[in-house]
Amino acid sequence: MIRIITMLILLSLLGCQGKMTEDLSSSVTKKVERPAYAIVIHGGAGTILKKNMTPEREAAYRKALMETLDVGEAILKDGGSALDAVEKTIHYMENSPLFNAGKGAVFTHDGTNEMDASIMQGIDQNAGAVGGLHTVKNPISAARAVMEKSEHVLLTSSGAEQFAQEVGLEIVPPSYFYTERRWKSLQRILNDEKTELSEHPEDPLDKKHGTVGCVAMDMQGNIVAGTSTGGMTNKRYNRFGDVPIIGAGTYADNTTCGVSCTGHGEYFIRYAVAHDVHARMLYLKESLAEATDYVVNKTLVEKGGSGGLVSVDKDGNVAMAFNSAGMYRGYARPGERFVGIYQEENTK
Amino acid sequence: MIRIITMLILLSLLGCQGKMTEDLSSSVTKKVERPAYAIVIHGGAGTILKKNMTPEREAAYRKALMETLDVGEAILKDGGSALDAVEKTIHYMENSPLFNAGKGAVFTHDGTNEMDASIMQGIDQNAGAVGGLHTVKNPISAARAVMEKSEHVLLTSSGAEQFAQEVGLEIVPPSYFYTERRWKSLQRILNDEKTELSEHPEDPLDKKHGTVGCVAMDMQGNIVAGTSTGGMTNKRYNRFGDVPIIGAGTYADNTTCGVSCTGHGEYFIRYAVAHDVHARMLYLKESLAEATDYVVNKTLVEKGGSGGLVSVDKDGNVAMAFNSAGMYRGYARPGERFVGIYQEENTK
Repeated sequence: MIRIITMLILLSLLGCQGKMTEDLSSSVTKKVERPAYAIVIHGGAGTILKKNMTPEREAAYRKALMETLDVGEAILKDGGSALDAVEKTIHYMENSPLFNAGKGAVFTHDGTNEMDASIMQGIDQNAGAVGGLHTVKNPISAARAVMEKSEHVLLTSSGAEQFAQEVGLEIVPPSYFYTERRWKSLQRILNDEKTELSEHPEDPLDKKHGTVGCVAMDMQGNIVAGTSTGGMTNKRYNRFGDVPIIGAGTYADNTTCGVSCTGHGEYFIRYAVAHDVHARMLYLKESLAEATDYVVNKTLVEKGGSGGLVSVDKDGNVAMAFNSAGMYRGYARPGERFVGIYQEENTK
Repeated sequence: MIRIITMLILLSLLGCQGKMTEDLSSSVTKKVERPAYAIVIHGGAGTILKKNMTPEREAAYRKALMETLDVGEAILKDGGSALDAVEKTIHYMENSPLFNAGKGAVFTHDGTNEMDASIMQGIDQNAGAVGGLHTVKNPISAARAVMEKSEHVLLTSSGAEQFAQEVGLEIVPPSYFYTERRWKSLQRILNDEKTELSEHPEDPLDKKHGTVGCVAMDMQGNIVAGTSTGGMTNKRYNRFGDVPIIGAGTYADNTTCGVSCTGHGEYFIRYAVAHDVHARMLYLKESLAEATDYVVNKTLVEKGGSGGLVSVDKDGNVAMAFNSAGMYRGYARPGERFVGIYQEENTK
């Protein structure tokens, strides 16, 4: 049973720079300002409670979220592309041991690391994804390479690693992905399997919800979404969750929005969550707030799918919606900055 | 460049048995008869032209399509489940060397066979999928086992094979999947790579579009969709197409329809084709005819994505839409039966 504590933070405030666009979500056609750029990130959603967090640990996450936003915002502010912003922003989170992606990836049942990632650009629905990587330092770059340097969308396992090597991505020994914290999480879960399966509040994201993601809109109005993960601790059978699945964990269309998800991946696949947010905006003419709220807090909650998503729409609105106790998250627009962890935190 | 020869065969005729349901696609609520059951199949879409087909070969395909329908219809007529009908129907095509799935799977660049499959039930959006199988005789049964016997949706490569073995599915040596025709196709393509890449009209489905699929609605009104493939001849890097991707190659929802796709998989992933048909019916209140026509003949054609799909909606309507020269296809409802290959064939 998931907790039905739900929360939706929706930012309808608009920034002070940018081009003039039409607000099609209103029945009255009015001119509103689109911010020059927007970027939103997540570092996983789950049973993240203040009572289980040390001040040091909380501070480390807040600092990491701020620094992550710094990376992407610097690129966007400088007129860089949303594609570069998303890739480099996710690099930062992949290189941090705090998040379940890249360096901080959780362990499989067999004590290995298997990483998935995907990226999609809203201008032409071009997309790339990888599943089951062991030795590529930054899986999001492998996803980008699949999009840009192959005729495919999804490459997997040893073939994807070979491709990453051929296009010159940084390869690291599997030991690079060893972190004591993640190793202990696996040992705890393996031990639980012998006794009784329980949740571990001190590391609530290890089991199902650890993912990082970023959606950005650049000064040209291009939206890109990307997601990267180490998957579930103790996963078996070369399981893929929603992260390498375009339409489930990641989607982007400049006419609607970009979406990056985090949560119990199987539910996000079955309800094509990222594509469904896009479809509701396109077909039902829902606002970003309405579409993300419905999918996260109604569709997923009714079915028992815990997690959340971040999104930027074509007008630069930002959504960070989740139905779990917390989600590591943040966004930046010109003159605006927010990072948060718990549901009780507001955007200011 | 794909051929922009397009075709849509839409069957609005309704069968003579069955329950009373409301036709919600009409603005006026009226009672129409839903057939007792409906089943539709495809065996791949592509540049299938009569001039390139021998009479013997054409007869073999028509016979196989008829026998395939026999399998599923017998189950449905007897009150069996759509789930059983779809699985057993796809078994029949997987066991035939004529279709690019199971026994007739094409070869990868490395001379191996890598098979993908997925299945989804419309009653609860439960789903299962497998990617990169080498030794499971019937990949669609592995997909069903993932749905019914695991907490996951997508298992891949050696892990999926281990899972299939553990749940007792039939395992065969890789040599089982050797067929001279598919081996020659690979050799031709490898040879072309050294000279100049060309299409081979005598085996047009080998390269991109070979897939089998089935959608069925049983007497309880449950809709199930399934798809199975050997992928692309000469594929590399453990590429997955749309077949193991829920939302791309396969989707099912009892409130709208079930969909199984075949075509250039990358496009079907990028436009979440199966889920998009569902979304258009649900959100835009389009009929099955309208939704499948739009997605196949507008969305995909505009983007250059060749292929097609088969679908059954909640009222037992059947669609077999494709934008290529041909699609191996057929359907059955009480008192009705059709099989076809070329675009010029009508439903009667």
